[in-house]
Amino acid sequence: MSLNTFGHLFRVTTWGESHGPALGATVDGCPPGIAVSEDDLQVWLDRRKPGQNRYTTQRREPDAVQILSGVFEGRSTGTPIQLTIQNADQRSKDYGDIADKFRPGHADITYWQKYGHRDYRGGGRSSARETAARVAAGGVARAALAALVPGLTITGYMVQMGPHRIDRARFDWDEIGRNPFWTPDAQAAEDWAATLDALRKDGNSVGAMIEVTARGVPAGLGAPVYGKLDTDLAAAMMSINAVKGVEIGEGMAAAALTGTDNADEIAMGPDGPVYASNHAGGILGGISTGQDVVVRFAVKPTSSILTPRRTITRTGGETEIVTKGRHDPCVGIRAVPVAEAMAACVILDHLLLDRGQTGGQRGRIG
Amino acid sequence: MSLNTFGHLFRVTTWGESHGPALGATVDGCPPGIAVSEDDLQVWLDRRKPGQNRYTTQRREPDAVQILSGVFEGRSTGTPIQLTIQNADQRSKDYGDIADKFRPGHADITYWQKYGHRDYRGGGRSSARETAARVAAGGVARAALAALVPGLTITGYMVQMGPHRIDRARFDWDEIGRNPFWTPDAQAAEDWAATLDALRKDGNSVGAMIEVTARGVPAGLGAPVYGKLDTDLAAAMMSINAVKGVEIGEGMAAAALTGTDNADEIAMGPDGPVYASNHAGGILGGISTGQDVVVRFAVKPTSSILTPRRTITRTGGETEIVTKGRHDPCVGIRAVPVAEAMAACVILDHLLLDRGQTGGQRGRIG
Amino acid sequence: MSLNTFGHLFRVTTWGESHGPALGATVDGCPPGIAVSEDDLQVWLDRRKPGQNRYTTQRREPDAVQILSGVFEGRSTGTPIQLTIQNADQRSKDYGDIADKFRPGHADITYWQKYGHRDYRGGGRSSARETAARVAAGGVARAALAALVPGLTITGYMVQMGPHRIDRARFDWDEIGRNPFWTPDAQAAEDWAATLDALRKDGNSVGAMIEVTARGVPAGLGAPVYGKLDTDLAAAMMSINAVKGVEIGEGMAAAALTGTDNADEIAMGPDGPVYASNHAGGILGGISTGQDVVVRFAVKPTSSILTPRRTITRTGGETEIVTKGRHDPCVGIRAVPVAEAMAACVILDHLLLDRGQTGGQRGRIG
Amino acid sequence: MSLNTFGHLFRVTTWGESHGPALGATVDGCPPGIAVSEDDLQVWLDRRKPGQNRYTTQRREPDAVQILSGVFEGRSTGTPIQLTIQNADQRSKDYGDIADKFRPGHADITYWQKYGHRDYRGGGRSSARETAARVAAGGVARAALAALVPGLTITGYMVQMGPHRIDRARFDWDEIGRNPFWTPDAQAAEDWAATLDALRKDGNSVGAMIEVTARGVPAGLGAPVYGKLDTDLAAAMMSINAVKGVEIGEGMAAAALTGTDNADEIAMGPDGPVYASNHAGGILGGISTGQDVVVRFAVKPTSSILTPRRTITRTGGETEIVTKGRHDPCVGIRAVPVAEAMAACVILDHLLLDRGQTGGQRGRIG
Repeated sequence: MSLNTFGHLFRVTTWGESHGPALGATVDGCPPGIAVSEDDLQVWLDRRKPGQNRYTTQRREPDAVQILSGVFEGRSTGTPIQLTIQNADQRSKDYGDIADKFRPGHADITYWQKYGHRDYRGGGRSSARETAARVAAGGVARAALAALVPGLTITGYMVQMGPHRIDRARFDWDEIGRNPFWTPDAQAAEDWAATLDALRKDGNSVGAMIEVTARGVPAGLGAPVYGKLDTDLAAAMMSINAVKGVEIGEGMAAAALTGTDNADEIAMGPDGPVYASNHAGGILGGISTGQDVVVRFAVKPTSSILTPRRTITRTGGETEIVTKGRHDPCVGIRAVPVAEAMAACVILDHLLLDRGQTGGQRGRIG
Repeated sequence: MSLNTFGHLFRVTTWGESHGPALGATVDGCPPGIAVSEDDLQVWLDRRKPGQNRYTTQRREPDAVQILSGVFEGRSTGTPIQLTIQNADQRSKDYGDIADKFRPGHADITYWQKYGHRDYRGGGRSSARETAARVAAGGVARAALAALVPGLTITGYMVQMGPHRIDRARFDWDEIGRNPFWTPDAQAAEDWAATLDALRKDGNSVGAMIEVTARGVPAGLGAPVYGKLDTDLAAAMMSINAVKGVEIGEGMAAAALTGTDNADEIAMGPDGPVYASNHAGGILGGISTGQDVVVRFAVKPTSSILTPRRTITRTGGETEIVTKGRHDPCVGIRAVPVAEAMAACVILDHLLLDRGQTGGQRGRIG
Repeated sequence: MSLNTFGHLFRVTTWGESHGPALGATVDGCPPGIAVSEDDLQVWLDRRKPGQNRYTTQRREPDAVQILSGVFEGRSTGTPIQLTIQNADQRSKDYGDIADKFRPGHADITYWQKYGHRDYRGGGRSSARETAARVAAGGVARAALAALVPGLTITGYMVQMGPHRIDRARFDWDEIGRNPFWTPDAQAAEDWAATLDALRKDGNSVGAMIEVTARGVPAGLGAPVYGKLDTDLAAAMMSINAVKGVEIGEGMAAAALTGTDNADEIAMGPDGPVYASNHAGGILGGISTGQDVVVRFAVKPTSSILTPRRTITRTGGETEIVTKGRHDPCVGIRAVPVAEAMAACVILDHLLLDRGQTGGQRGRIG
Repeated sequence: MSLNTFGHLFRVTTWGESHGPALGATVDGCPPGIAVSEDDLQVWLDRRKPGQNRYTTQRREPDAVQILSGVFEGRSTGTPIQLTIQNADQRSKDYGDIADKFRPGHADITYWQKYGHRDYRGGGRSSARETAARVAAGGVARAALAALVPGLTITGYMVQMGPHRIDRARFDWDEIGRNPFWTPDAQAAEDWAATLDALRKDGNSVGAMIEVTARGVPAGLGAPVYGKLDTDLAAAMMSINAVKGVEIGEGMAAAALTGTDNADEIAMGPDGPVYASNHAGGILGGISTGQDVVVRFAVKPTSSILTPRRTITRTGGETEIVTKGRHDPCVGIRAVPVAEAMAACVILDHLLLDRGQTGGQRGRIG
């Protein structure tokens, strides 16, 4: 990953800040001939859009994406696809106090230290708004994947909010789209609503854990060492703002297992290898096994809160700050479509890398 | 990260397999004039070397590193530094059974599926041997950091083995080098020895959790979005074989926190900002704060175990496998110096990137 | 260079086609704090703008550049700078015939063969319009260079049109801006005007040779092997559409010299080494010497001509084509500001690379 | 191109200096299953090897290449291929004088200025010895091309020595291997021998022009803007030491043509498009047409000559230097196999890039 680009062959460069006129993504390396339209992309953006329910920021952004290049007569040409989203509701007056005071947990202070000059009206590139560009780019990746690997699906969902985890016994794929938390556990959705209402009333916020499952990923994507599929997935998720940890399959819990427990035993099925379990999260030695690819990550609680916190000013004075404005009490909610988009980009990128190196041929078993 | 290269400006390309004649690293982009010798690097390699105690593989490898280029009269010239390590003790006869049977939890099956041709005598690039090259390269990075940022230290240590965590109240930096587990908790070291002896007797293995703390990292390294310091650290750790999860600072536990708890409040000290806590792990918005940079990762249990596991052969037959040979019952132990090396490479790389873009100047506070 | 990105640390990604709604450049890695405005960039764009005299295409494009991100209160923030230019005068009806017939000398046929789908209304990414984005990006590079290396100048000029070369004895830097050909030879400008008028009347076109001289480039930029300053300059110039050859210093003529003639002898001046000649074009072993950096390139004649040429259709039929429309009889003219822009990007990029690796320190002579 | 790496997917990193113990190349991204052996590579190295006739340096180097990784049982595994060549005949005593005096035309002075520390015993990375590693890597690329595109050939040959050009009417492909100059013109070979003998006697040297023709390159390789096939070929050739100019097809002479002359008219043949001429050198809009790809470059005369030249010392004193030692009177001769190797790497790289993005499918004509 370069400063603002991710991907090897399917390369996405995002640009734009929270309080500038627009933001967007330049998508390079898309296969030609892929059917994709603004409407196709808008579907995904609408899922991430703020202000859809009382649990996300009330900033009103239509987040309408325009395709400015790289698509002709409804299909990609193989040249760069420019995706632009206007910033409609900047309302920077809300942010007056933050020009001088560094908000704890925000990048205000590190931006200042590094660059010595920053757009003090908001979070700049570290604002959640940047992720709209990712979602748009992810929509292109999804369109390409739909053409290249029919049946591949990528689904994100929330598995924990604050200390409250879902009950995996109640896991229902169909439930995910029905509640504002993108959670597969209907009961959890109900409980979390109450929790979040209380936190919001207190001017507080809370963290969350998101899981993304990619089903139908063909075996053989990735590479053994640095170009591992899991390395790139980890980097992709960690690159989302507020993410503090990333797991593949068993994740951090793998530390607690024995080798006997952790081994995913293999049998032979009609269409190839079949695994008795998926502790590996669908990746062995950096390369996909054909099982579900499972990645999980933690989002820290929104740092913008109404509870006063001690901080300093640019001139070194000590003070307190209360971050007013319109903030998500749980930014994790809107991280769900963002994570799906990142996963789509990574998987497509590795699909292209793989067919570049191997031509997509596979060693035969059986 | 490319297939076998990591880093932007300080770029390390490793090569070599477990059962070939040699392995190594090509280190490109090292600053010139850095004092570094084979002896300097050997210090770090000796920490990772197998066979040092009964808890690591009995494969006997001197792991003697040779510098073949890029260093002249004891100092780097700014050209590529080739680091080569001979594979002395390949003893591939030990591995006879694995030519045909895919070992569960290993990359044997995914290598085969992807490449259709593989060195079946061992783990290839996914062997822990590949990490020797990283440690050598990390030694170069440490030498450069010592010259550029005197006082910066990078220390790895084990914080959990199987389900047993250290007691942070007993944390002692000086203890780390005294026990075979690189753990700062002397009591844990004693307990783990017993646990590991029992597991080894059972032909089993166990996972572990490692933490790396970098002290003295200057504020301002990293970038807001994809070129984040934490993105690259996460990728670096996830690229180590057997790693399944990576955390920065509070990590996955951040999901359970509220915004009030998570905020690292800021005060003004004599030399700049002082933080009341370090939930962030020393990184805000992808950029270092000047606090300790803390990264943690989980290593899965060694997949090579003596307990029979069900698997398939290359021709699709179902069978069982017992992986004989000389294996680490807890590969996490030897991951400690590897993780330090990776952290050193990432931090140096970001130091060079930062002075490339900003000239190393800093926005002033106070 | 990636598909649509050039540069290592100062990275420019251009997007957009000749007949889409807009085109632009995403500039990543700009140092922070650089004073730059839309007006600053417009100065350079206006030099490249079509329709300024009778020797360039009559397509009417204001080529007004907008800065959509990365600049705040008149100075760069260190984040991506998005530069967008609307395509005002697309008038695609002019191009009707070319949807089915492949124009000789154009990329129509190779686009089709590679991508199987293309915007047949114009030259797509291979149109000279793409270079407007480069000029805008080059303007940012110039602004950064002005801040980092005061006194550095980059000047492009035409040294040959068709078979007619300038007379170096008449070389006058001040003349360059006074004639429509950006040539330093006033007499040549007069002669070429007549030549070009005749060619235009005939529906023909002609090639040209451009030279770019960068004065004040500090010694020490570049690297010995692949990251050579001359490698990147050659790639940068060759990446401009219609360029068929690139030379550094003596260039192709170096083949004809003896070692005695070619040696640039060195003496010691008050401020360091002084060279008796500059056959090397300011670069030795890939690294700048501090002399003028001199790069030269040839632009082929515009392929869009009114003289009928034999060609084939998409369905394989043989036919003839006359390319109507508004074309430059000598595209080389407008290549001058483009080449300057590319040179500025490469030099800035190497300046950042150098200070990344070496900190900008220099070995001392004397 | 990074500092010491070239290629996008097929990535070659070379390392080593003229007077260190060894040099080599790390080849990453090779397709798996490619038949390649040390003997296969040695064939190409032997063509470049010094001391084969009286026109190349008398340094005695066996240049025996060893494959240390990435090849198993005679076929590539898809992992990095390490190619190492020992430096047998370093004889650095020859070079005593050059530790303090900067040789005109050499990189001594720029190395010193940039790095402040250098291996003063020889040319370091800028020595022609570095190119041995390229030839070895090119051998791998050729092996892969042989498997992927049977019938593709890459042939380099000398077309000019000093002011003496070959007569194209006498061009004979079979003659190329028969004379020490790799020239297709038997008469030129005879004339050049006399010229070179005279120059050598005078302690002088001479430049040369080399052409490489790749036949059988499929249409569709490359990309329109920065990832152009010609951009990468130009960069590859310019990265060879002593190269001062690069041309594609008509090259610098394109400046002198009119559009009518330059158009390569197209007809329809039984297997697709057939071109009446090849001014384009087989590349249109950065993408291969299926015609011969023709690249040409100039090599400056060897800078190490016995004629005294004025120069300065590291302490700034003015002096004269005579470069004794064993040098090629015309380095262009040995550049021929190097250029072939670079061309092979670039073409393979673009083949992999193309099948990554497009899957190798082609738009149909007819």
